[in-house]
Amino acid sequence: MAPTQQNMAAVCYGRDDLRLVPIAMPEPAFNEVVLEVDSCGICGTDVHFLKEGGFGEQKLIRPLVLGHESAGVVRKVGSAVTHLKVGDRVAIEPAAGCRTCDLCKVGKYNICLNGKHCPTKNHDGNCSNFFSHYADCCFKLPDHVTMEEGALLEPLAVGVYAGRRADIRLGSRVVIFGAGPIGLISLVVAKAMGATRTVVLDLARAGVRLEAAKKLGATAVIPIGEQDSEDELVKRIQEALGGPADRALECTGSEPGMRTSIRATRNAGIVCLVGLGNEEVRLPMVDAISREVQIITVMRYNHDYPAALEIVSSGYVDVKPLVSHHFGLKDVNEAFRVAAAGEGLKVMVHLTPRDSNNPKKFVN
Amino acid sequence: MAPTQQNMAAVCYGRDDLRLVPIAMPEPAFNEVVLEVDSCGICGTDVHFLKEGGFGEQKLIRPLVLGHESAGVVRKVGSAVTHLKVGDRVAIEPAAGCRTCDLCKVGKYNICLNGKHCPTKNHDGNCSNFFSHYADCCFKLPDHVTMEEGALLEPLAVGVYAGRRADIRLGSRVVIFGAGPIGLISLVVAKAMGATRTVVLDLARAGVRLEAAKKLGATAVIPIGEQDSEDELVKRIQEALGGPADRALECTGSEPGMRTSIRATRNAGIVCLVGLGNEEVRLPMVDAISREVQIITVMRYNHDYPAALEIVSSGYVDVKPLVSHHFGLKDVNEAFRVAAAGEGLKVMVHLTPRDSNNPKKFVN
Amino acid sequence: MAPTQQNMAAVCYGRDDLRLVPIAMPEPAFNEVVLEVDSCGICGTDVHFLKEGGFGEQKLIRPLVLGHESAGVVRKVGSAVTHLKVGDRVAIEPAAGCRTCDLCKVGKYNICLNGKHCPTKNHDGNCSNFFSHYADCCFKLPDHVTMEEGALLEPLAVGVYAGRRADIRLGSRVVIFGAGPIGLISLVVAKAMGATRTVVLDLARAGVRLEAAKKLGATAVIPIGEQDSEDELVKRIQEALGGPADRALECTGSEPGMRTSIRATRNAGIVCLVGLGNEEVRLPMVDAISREVQIITVMRYNHDYPAALEIVSSGYVDVKPLVSHHFGLKDVNEAFRVAAAGEGLKVMVHLTPRDSNNPKKFVN
Amino acid sequence: MAPTQQNMAAVCYGRDDLRLVPIAMPEPAFNEVVLEVDSCGICGTDVHFLKEGGFGEQKLIRPLVLGHESAGVVRKVGSAVTHLKVGDRVAIEPAAGCRTCDLCKVGKYNICLNGKHCPTKNHDGNCSNFFSHYADCCFKLPDHVTMEEGALLEPLAVGVYAGRRADIRLGSRVVIFGAGPIGLISLVVAKAMGATRTVVLDLARAGVRLEAAKKLGATAVIPIGEQDSEDELVKRIQEALGGPADRALECTGSEPGMRTSIRATRNAGIVCLVGLGNEEVRLPMVDAISREVQIITVMRYNHDYPAALEIVSSGYVDVKPLVSHHFGLKDVNEAFRVAAAGEGLKVMVHLTPRDSNNPKKFVN
Repeated sequence: MAPTQQNMAAVCYGRDDLRLVPIAMPEPAFNEVVLEVDSCGICGTDVHFLKEGGFGEQKLIRPLVLGHESAGVVRKVGSAVTHLKVGDRVAIEPAAGCRTCDLCKVGKYNICLNGKHCPTKNHDGNCSNFFSHYADCCFKLPDHVTMEEGALLEPLAVGVYAGRRADIRLGSRVVIFGAGPIGLISLVVAKAMGATRTVVLDLARAGVRLEAAKKLGATAVIPIGEQDSEDELVKRIQEALGGPADRALECTGSEPGMRTSIRATRNAGIVCLVGLGNEEVRLPMVDAISREVQIITVMRYNHDYPAALEIVSSGYVDVKPLVSHHFGLKDVNEAFRVAAAGEGLKVMVHLTPRDSNNPKKFVN
Repeated sequence: MAPTQQNMAAVCYGRDDLRLVPIAMPEPAFNEVVLEVDSCGICGTDVHFLKEGGFGEQKLIRPLVLGHESAGVVRKVGSAVTHLKVGDRVAIEPAAGCRTCDLCKVGKYNICLNGKHCPTKNHDGNCSNFFSHYADCCFKLPDHVTMEEGALLEPLAVGVYAGRRADIRLGSRVVIFGAGPIGLISLVVAKAMGATRTVVLDLARAGVRLEAAKKLGATAVIPIGEQDSEDELVKRIQEALGGPADRALECTGSEPGMRTSIRATRNAGIVCLVGLGNEEVRLPMVDAISREVQIITVMRYNHDYPAALEIVSSGYVDVKPLVSHHFGLKDVNEAFRVAAAGEGLKVMVHLTPRDSNNPKKFVN
Repeated sequence: MAPTQQNMAAVCYGRDDLRLVPIAMPEPAFNEVVLEVDSCGICGTDVHFLKEGGFGEQKLIRPLVLGHESAGVVRKVGSAVTHLKVGDRVAIEPAAGCRTCDLCKVGKYNICLNGKHCPTKNHDGNCSNFFSHYADCCFKLPDHVTMEEGALLEPLAVGVYAGRRADIRLGSRVVIFGAGPIGLISLVVAKAMGATRTVVLDLARAGVRLEAAKKLGATAVIPIGEQDSEDELVKRIQEALGGPADRALECTGSEPGMRTSIRATRNAGIVCLVGLGNEEVRLPMVDAISREVQIITVMRYNHDYPAALEIVSSGYVDVKPLVSHHFGLKDVNEAFRVAAAGEGLKVMVHLTPRDSNNPKKFVN
Repeated sequence: MAPTQQNMAAVCYGRDDLRLVPIAMPEPAFNEVVLEVDSCGICGTDVHFLKEGGFGEQKLIRPLVLGHESAGVVRKVGSAVTHLKVGDRVAIEPAAGCRTCDLCKVGKYNICLNGKHCPTKNHDGNCSNFFSHYADCCFKLPDHVTMEEGALLEPLAVGVYAGRRADIRLGSRVVIFGAGPIGLISLVVAKAMGATRTVVLDLARAGVRLEAAKKLGATAVIPIGEQDSEDELVKRIQEALGGPADRALECTGSEPGMRTSIRATRNAGIVCLVGLGNEEVRLPMVDAISREVQIITVMRYNHDYPAALEIVSSGYVDVKPLVSHHFGLKDVNEAFRVAAAGEGLKVMVHLTPRDSNNPKKFVN
């Protein structure tokens, strides 16, 4: 951090108003580190802020730095930090609880009401050159794991948590709604947990994403046409799986996704809702109740970074194919445009030149 | 069973067409007993057949004997039955699985697709003088437990299962929607499991039921007026409980019940859906997902008769106050009218003269 | 805290060497409060330090303040504390994690390796006039709850946690080993959770404790004689319960307690180990494995103070009968003698005159 | 089944007395099929009968047909059987409950007290040419799955159940005691469920088995020498895993295995006991309790054949390398000798000529 360094950030000032502006250079509190961010993936919730001014309780109430799927290099270390040192390459978990409320005490920091979850209305994200964060939320990367993979631990942690809560088992038949980054990562996780039959659905126009699902090993993909009825989709899912789904991972947050998930799932099966979308959704509840289909909801992750890092680091899963686009920070608006358009898979913003912090190059 | 005895049954021939007609006298299969039914409570699902021709997948496709909350006396014993003998007084669990499917193997016989669940479209209920049933679904009553209490084990088992699945704990704050028999029994169970703050809601016009909830120990009851908004109800529930609900037991199957349940429940809380009602329900799913409110569904019970019998037999709970009306079999149409009108609490049909099989009289 | 006030503490200097000495007056850190301790119960682990120099990893390595079942009054408030103010009466949870390790993140702060668990070898207990503690570990008592009940929340939280982990259900048959304070509280909790048949065992010479178990509502008590064989005990337990136990709560930490617990429990039942005792225990593991008896271990509690307070405050349980002896701080050695001798039930040390902080008198 | 066919069986008449004798040709009951057995693996429990006259409650009380890891071809079909027909190739699950007891009702048929578990003292095994069995316990094999793999589903189901109960997760660090067939299969399952670091221990003299563990992908193997202390083993396990184990799968049933499992496992970790061995075991229980190490026991499997078949059939796991020896039925004594000596891995007895029922040859 030379004295002349600036801290440029991608700040959302309102709908469709994303600006690259300098923000204050952070100093670490006693339990924090200051990170120089290397890579930052763009997530659907970042896009929600930019295109719709937020989601649920999270509304834009001031200019907000976006971005939360990041990895960086430790540049300053708070006085009480012992497990990290300057120069360490780390993945940054952007969710932290208050540590003292009823939810945090029992381990549900991910939905702590007073937590520092980035970006939410009161907390900036980290698509910025520098970012100060709790040291215990920074996970040191081994040399052979790239910064991009470090950034990808965020969506991977979402998938790991969802798969865990959905109780995916050896031999499970899994239907996945949505072939965006979270849907694809859920596919990777479901297979890693033992799912032997998987089917991924998305709109027919998202052909490139369904193609990716196929490459990532989905047993089948179903492009949803404008005319396709719910009955028809249920039938095709069950044909693809050779029977009703044991588990559904709903990654779109849409009414059709949730409805079809319930209907395609077997008695006593589990529908896990991962995606946030329609505020209000009309659901076939007599069907769900009379067949005891459980509806499990997940938000963020719950200390799943260590497992996510472990399965990447060991080569158990490969998340590199999920990145489709690379942009420098100066092109952050174009990066958001591509992400919002769903033209590819994961869009990565590079805040430092590519591979400058990677002992081993990122190749996908 | 004197040779001249008839087997009169309450048979539903169509909407609003309930007739008292003789049906065949049953003989037990090797693993069955023939029971002379003593008491039979009327349940909402029986009423659904009579007033609406069924519910969900269960449609009236032939004349159907109604009734499934029964207790009786063993009159004949199949060749392989060892734990029961003629004269035994038993509660009759009306749900039995096929014993061999994937669901039965893992203990989910209650939603077995091929089970004998009475009454469903292919299986007669037991509001009839005689009924043949699997011996392992008949639970012997001690002398001090009345036949009426035996019949009440059915709704009690529903409550026990729901409370168990809802994971009600010591000190839980519980909101219960609906003050009908299942709502009231859920209240009894919630308190028995340790709930210290309970609030029960029902329509203002169901005043007698809310009164009963109060008598059964609800911390508060809320009569729902025509004008009451969802926001208002959520506020009043949380005031009554001193904070958001830890658990909701939704016993109405209605859209307002489910919606308000979700909204009134705390982050990471559980909404347990017990009642069957509206086929399609519009739900606030961004709220549910972003706060990780879990939506657990329950159908029937899952080997909960033994626990239900144990807590009645030991005096741990008292279900006798739940009975508000008594009718003889000949007045079964009036019994159904009262049950359908929601004029009281549980309506009991007596197929034998009251207390004729009770060593200890039923008094409530 | 008048300037002349001293902070006298019960300090253990070695085996059988407990002294009343002045210690430093504490000042609160930003997230702490300073408490004037009112009542402090004596627990078996305190006695372990005094009589055996510690237990397991916890050895006396310096003079240590004993005591950890306390309630007090807030006298000073740290700068960041918002939910407490001077004069508040609080129960003091003596277990706190480091907040940042893998265990704390998932809610297992009770076994955090770096936590502040009092008293352990590096952390003083709180049988002292003043004690500084994390504010989030102090639970405000309503006016009608006495300081003694506040102190009793500690063992009650142990029981609540154990009952929860043991998955005690409505209608459970429960065997409890040990009729000391933890055994008796486990009995109270088991019944509060729905256990309908309970049997408590202790050595015949602990007659007063078994008598207390009987008064607290145990279905049966079994005094263990010198000659009683394991087979004989198993038989008597199963006779008392009318069959094998569904759950065992082992509160002695002894080999006979654990062995008999396993053998008396049904297939697929749960043995919950609460008591710490023999380092090495010989167990019948072919019996445990071939019958799938699960062996669940619990240490301290896991955010169970709120539930413990709720069930006391609401009158759902009454823990007052558990106190058998009262001593002033100056008689702390005699208090420890009585506690170590097992002459009564819970021994309470009063650091302020009895009832001076109780709007409603403590009567038992 | 030509009229002249004989039903030769491997019958144990006492310790070290295994004879090949003709037994009665079975006829199917209404819910059974008669199978012509093709392949039968030899398991440790079979060996226990032959070498020690049984184990636990299971003692040899009459001549007993051994063998229970089998696959066969349907030759006769009972009157009520609908999902199988003559000629179907099936894996035979040798565990069936009574279907009506408390355990079976909740899905714990594997430890049903009245079940047909083969071979147990009252139920013959199936190392015989023909065997009659419940149709619902026979799982049809697809053409590309060999009979040998069908037979291997039995130990694989043990591993699947153990892994499920041990709650092995993505990124788990797992220690496995024992490199016999169950240990090796547990390794395969642990890796399939997401374990990224695995270490397998066995006696140094079982070098060939540890070699196999290495080939199957264990991160490390530890040959246990005569001098190795418990402390030393714990240290080496934790070095191999890079920290304490999250999960232990104990497949030896030995005291050192259980002790070291507990000590090597992290706070709040799970030790899953799979192997049956020493009746009485001395365990470090203060260590287990104070660190909340859970001790989970498993017996047989719990409807895990479908998942086992699914992961084999889909190629998700490969169990073929587990077979080290092949024998014809006439050499069954030699087969048992090799199995008892632990000279190889899984020993397979072929009751029909190899590959005669395999559309695709068994090659490993």
